[in-house]
This record gives sequence, structure tokens and C-alpha cells, in this order.
Amino acid sequence: MTDVQLVMNAGSSSLKFAAYTAKGDKPVLKGKVAGIGRAPEFSATGAQPDALGELTPDTPHDEVVQRVLGWLTAHPEFGDIKAVGHRVVHGGRDFSKPVLVTDDILDQLTVLEPLAPSHQPHNLAAIRAVRGWKAELPQVACFDTGFHASQPKLNSMFGLPRSLTDQGVIRYGFHGLSYEYIARILPRHLGQAADGRVVVAHLGNGASMCAMEGRRSVATTMGFSALDGLVMGRRCGSLDPGVLLYLQQGLGMTIGQIETLLYKESGLLGVSGVSNAMQVLQDSTAPEAAEAIELFCLRAAQELARMLPCIGGLDALVFTAGIGENSDRVRAGICAHLEWLGLALSFDANAASDTIIHAADSKVQVWVLPTDEEAVIVGHMHDLVA
Amino acid sequence: MTDVQLVMNAGSSSLKFAAYTAKGDKPVLKGKVAGIGRAPEFSATGAQPDALGELTPDTPHDEVVQRVLGWLTAHPEFGDIKAVGHRVVHGGRDFSKPVLVTDDILDQLTVLEPLAPSHQPHNLAAIRAVRGWKAELPQVACFDTGFHASQPKLNSMFGLPRSLTDQGVIRYGFHGLSYEYIARILPRHLGQAADGRVVVAHLGNGASMCAMEGRRSVATTMGFSALDGLVMGRRCGSLDPGVLLYLQQGLGMTIGQIETLLYKESGLLGVSGVSNAMQVLQDSTAPEAAEAIELFCLRAAQELARMLPCIGGLDALVFTAGIGENSDRVRAGICAHLEWLGLALSFDANAASDTIIHAADSKVQVWVLPTDEEAVIVGHMHDLVA
Repeated sequence: MTDVQLVMNAGSSSLKFAAYTAKGDKPVLKGKVAGIGRAPEFSATGAQPDALGELTPDTPHDEVVQRVLGWLTAHPEFGDIKAVGHRVVHGGRDFSKPVLVTDDILDQLTVLEPLAPSHQPHNLAAIRAVRGWKAELPQVACFDTGFHASQPKLNSMFGLPRSLTDQGVIRYGFHGLSYEYIARILPRHLGQAADGRVVVAHLGNGASMCAMEGRRSVATTMGFSALDGLVMGRRCGSLDPGVLLYLQQGLGMTIGQIETLLYKESGLLGVSGVSNAMQVLQDSTAPEAAEAIELFCLRAAQELARMLPCIGGLDALVFTAGIGENSDRVRAGICAHLEWLGLALSFDANAASDTIIHAADSKVQVWVLPTDEEAVIVGHMHDLVA
Repeated sequence: MTDVQLVMNAGSSSLKFAAYTAKGDKPVLKGKVAGIGRAPEFSATGAQPDALGELTPDTPHDEVVQRVLGWLTAHPEFGDIKAVGHRVVHGGRDFSKPVLVTDDILDQLTVLEPLAPSHQPHNLAAIRAVRGWKAELPQVACFDTGFHASQPKLNSMFGLPRSLTDQGVIRYGFHGLSYEYIARILPRHLGQAADGRVVVAHLGNGASMCAMEGRRSVATTMGFSALDGLVMGRRCGSLDPGVLLYLQQGLGMTIGQIETLLYKESGLLGVSGVSNAMQVLQDSTAPEAAEAIELFCLRAAQELARMLPCIGGLDALVFTAGIGENSDRVRAGICAHLEWLGLALSFDANAASDTIIHAADSKVQVWVLPTDEEAVIVGHMHDLVA
């Protein structure tokens, strides 16, 4: 039976998984459970939608992971799982590189849960579930924060008392596996410009940007948490801290209500009142939907500009992830706010979602490159698991 | 006896006042009580430091206002006060232009106190104290938010649910009287360029920036509250909202403690651990003091860049207020992060704090122009009080 590497990406409302043979780089199996906690739906290579048994809004994350592992056990034809790699959102200050998970490391990662309360617990629950399934399997944790460890200290500091900075209340940044993938493939596409001043825009339901120089992270828009920076599907993005004081002191909201408001009810969903999904907004005729898209584009351009003092200008902009790869309207909307940089889009190339979408006379290159976080995890597994 | 107009600027820890003759534009009297609540100190044209009697850290704001009014009563040689004008920090959505204060208006402004809890109550207390002193005196309120009413809606929106935006949780912006003054004098200095793309940097103990086009506010760095945007003397500036959730949920701080942290213990003071005063930091040999200055400059450049998509580039940058007018080190530090815009400073002109400080080949003009908020208030008093 073929040996395979299993990659798990346990998010706040989804579990994605894929199996790779040790020598190939295309997955032999891909699957996911979406809508956990709302309306779970299972899909996987060659599987029936009901293959995991009945999934309800009450089926907890752990249970979903266990059902998937059970399903894999029942289908040995996908290969003999030799190791499992996980996307783990937060590595804190101590973990910038992928690691083989030990008891001690799992404890250390658990301590970081309050830094990413809506993601980290699910990531670690998946690791624990795999241990319960086959304790001897090597597991690798790859961190979304890791790629940003190269940021200069000043770029990661808030204007807070030094004691809080020293305790780790800093701008960590996320989506690091996606940025690592793009950084790796950049030279193939951009040649020498790959090592110049590049901003990568990872625009998905969660969205952030990373300013790179020499293909290393110099600045990023997400901060201490995954709330900061761009307007997202349901998250507010950057927000005056005085608003949080007012929501509590002026409007009497509890901290739990505010957390729900900022993580689940804001962003495109809150502004439009229609949906958190960009495609739905684009198809809508509601003026509020159009306004939400406009706000998304303006704020994205502003967040990009905010990082330019850190890299001293812009040679190339790369769009990636769901919205970045698929929405010509959003790409055009963002780029329209950046013409003062000498950036000019090719209307036709953008409409066709070509790989290169800038106009011939643009001073800034603009690219659309699909990201692949799982490929990065598999690469690290090969390095760490002999 | 000469008729005079009295201007009062009642801040969170100071009360400044000045008297102007109806026809002149230089004050005939200038005074202030600094350090209210800590170590109050009185100074005024031709007055002894003890002229108000003993002031202690416990002397409340109202009492300070009353002592000043009593002192003015005892010194009729400064003129016969015919009207009093006030800087009022928050005009909400309803007051973008200066108004003659009535009972009804005072009530409406009181409702706005939760939007600016550390300033608005003191501003209104001064108005009430003057009423108690001479009920018949016309009083004019001039709003720090007013100048930014021209912002396009999109520039003032947060990524929050529409209901909150509709309730007024938006980016108001402050320092409007200072920006109004600079906007008024810009043509005198910049000629036609005054109506171009101009960023004014009001850098004082409170600090913000305003991006103008046609000498109207298009975007600003301060938000709903006076906490947002630049790192300030004691205030944090922009901050990931997730940090506030963590301070409460992870570290168990109360909302009151967080308010004190963000308004009083952060910014230059918190980062340096040395002082909130830029001059003290510049004179310090502590590496933490240098780091605080570097963070101030980087963040100022980033906040400036964040507004450029809203005005489509930059023709001129104007420095004003205490730090902006006096610190060549800060101006040079900020401009060093903006060279990618084609901005080049003249080392000598900047060191001399000349009015024009850009190099001959700079693509962006850079100016140092003193601000005068009181002059703006007096101007509006002349318009509103016959």
C-alpha cells in the first residue's frame, strides 16, 4: 500500500484534509467538512455526501475530526498514513518554524489559545484527535504566524506600554503558509523582481496582506489577532479602540457580545446586511451590497498603502486566495485606488483573470497567483519526518 | 473700556484662554492653567503665578474655570467681555458649523459626552461655568469634528454592522479647528498648490493628520474617538481590536483599567517608559526613548500613506502644532519613510525649522506652518455675535 502524508486544516467552521504520496505533489485525496456548527456538509474525492453519517449543527469539531479519521480507516485504498501535518494558527514568539509535535509542545501551544480563541483550540483539538486515533503517528505543526517572524521589531509594535510588548502583545500576522507558498513560487513568475518590493494580497473570507522584500515578510496588515487590517467576510478589520470602549461603556454591551459582533456580524456581512460572500454581493442589486464591496476595496488599498513606508514603495502586487484569484471586480476596485503609484491594470487581462494583469505601461506589476497552503505543509512534513 | 471676545479651550488637563479686541487679531491677553489634576500651574499676561490662589492636584476643572473668571472680573483693564467662544471637541453628526449655545444645544452636546469622555465634559463644564458667571453673555461653540464633515461617507465608515454606522459609530476626526486654520492660510503660502492633494500633520501631545483636497477634509487619522491613528504622548493610536478583547478575557483587566491604559499610560510614555514629552525623549540617552521616537515617526508615515488612496497621491505635506513646528528630528524621521513618494527634505532648512523645508528637487512640497485654533474661534465669534 502506498505511503501517504495527511494534511489537516481545522478552521473555525470547517475541516479540510488532503493526502499526498511521499513523492508526488498533487493530492491523491481531498476532502472537507464545511459549515461546522451551522449546516455541516461533507465532500471528498469519490465519497458520498453521507459517508460520515449524519452531521448536525450540534456535531462538535472533535467529533467531526473523529468521523473523518474513521472514514479514512475504512478506506485504506487512499494509502497508509505515515504522518499528519496541521495548520496551526498561532506559534507565538517561540515557534516560527514548523515542529514535530511532542507533549511539551502541545502544552506550549495550548497556552497560546487566548491569543486566537476562535482558531487555535480547533487546530489543537485535531492534533489531539489524531493522537487518540493512532498515538504513534508523527504530527507536524505549521504556523500561520511563522512567516512574519522576519518582521523588524518596530513594524510589529503597538503604541502600548513596554511591559505588554514584552509579554507578546505585538502584531504577529497570519496567513503565513499562504505567503510562504507565494514567496516560494514568486521567482518562477517575476524573475529578479521577486526579490523587490512586493505586496501579496491574500483575499479570502479572512483577508490580509503581506509586504515583502527579498521574499521575506517585512510588514503585514493583520495584527495580534485575526481581526485587524482589511474588512473581511464577517470581521471588522482595523477599528478605533475607542469604539470598543464605547460599545461597553456607552451601549452596555458585554465583552462576549462584542467578540461576536466583531468576529461574526461585521465586515461584508454587517456593512451589506446581505451576505459575507463576495460572489453573493457581486450578484446583488442592493446598494448596500455595492457599498460593502466599495468599502472592502478602499480599505484594502489603504492597508496596502500603510505598509509602503516599511518597504519603500511598490514593484509588484500579487492577488491570491478565493476573492483575489476570482474577483476581477475587487481587483479592479482596489487597483483604481492605487493609480497614484503608477499602477495600471489591463482591463482585458483582469477580466480574464490572467496570471499577469497589469497594463504594458504600468510601473507596478500586478499578478494573480493561486495559493496552496497544503503544499507548504507537505513540504515541511517531508523535511521533518524522515 | 474696550470690548473683548474671550476664547476658552478647556482640555482634559489644561484650561487655555485668550482675549481679543473686536477689531484686532492678536490677543490682548493670553493665559493658561496647565497640569490640572496633577500639578496645576497658572500663567497669564502680566499675572503672578499665584494670582488664582492655591491650586492643588485636587482642584477640580470647574473650580479652575471659576477662579479664572474671578481673576478676569478683578482685572477689568483687559477689557469688557462681550462674548465667550469655546473649543468643543465633539459636535456629533448634527453640529458641523459653530453655533450660539442655547439650553437646547447644551443638552444635545451633553448627550455626546460618551463619545469623548475625557474631553467633552470639561468643554461643557466651561460653558456652564460662564453661564453661572454672567448668564446673559453670548457663547459660541466651535467643534473639533466640524471640519471633517466634508469627508466622503466611505472614508468615515468602519467595517461594522450598518445599524451601528447609522447610530453614529463612524470616524469623526478631531483637531478640526487647527486644520481649518491651516486650510485658510494655505493659499497665502502654497498658491494654487493649496487646492491640491495636501496632508496636514497636527503633531502635538494629541496628534492626527488630515488629507485635504480643495482645502476640505477628505480623510483623517483620528476616528470615532481621540485614541485612533498616530502614536501620541500618552495614547496608543490605532490598535488591533483583538488586543482589547485579550486584555479583558486573557488578562482580566476591567474596562476602566483599559481606558486608563490606552488614554494615559500608552503612546510615547508607555513605549519609552521615560516621558510623554517629545523634547524629553529627544534629550534622553535611553534606547527606549529613541525607539519611542522611531515608532512615532514610522507610524506617522504609515498613517499618512494610508490616506493617500483617498486623495490620489501627495502634492504637499504641512507640519504644525508643538512637535510639528519644533522637532526637526521628528520631521526628518517621518520624511525619511516617505522618500518613495519623491519627497526630499532640505537638511538645512529643516534643521532651521524654516517655513519651506523641502529640497529643490522634491516632488512633494514640505512646509512648517504654525497653527492658531483660537484665531479660528474668534473668527467664528465675529460671524455669529453681531
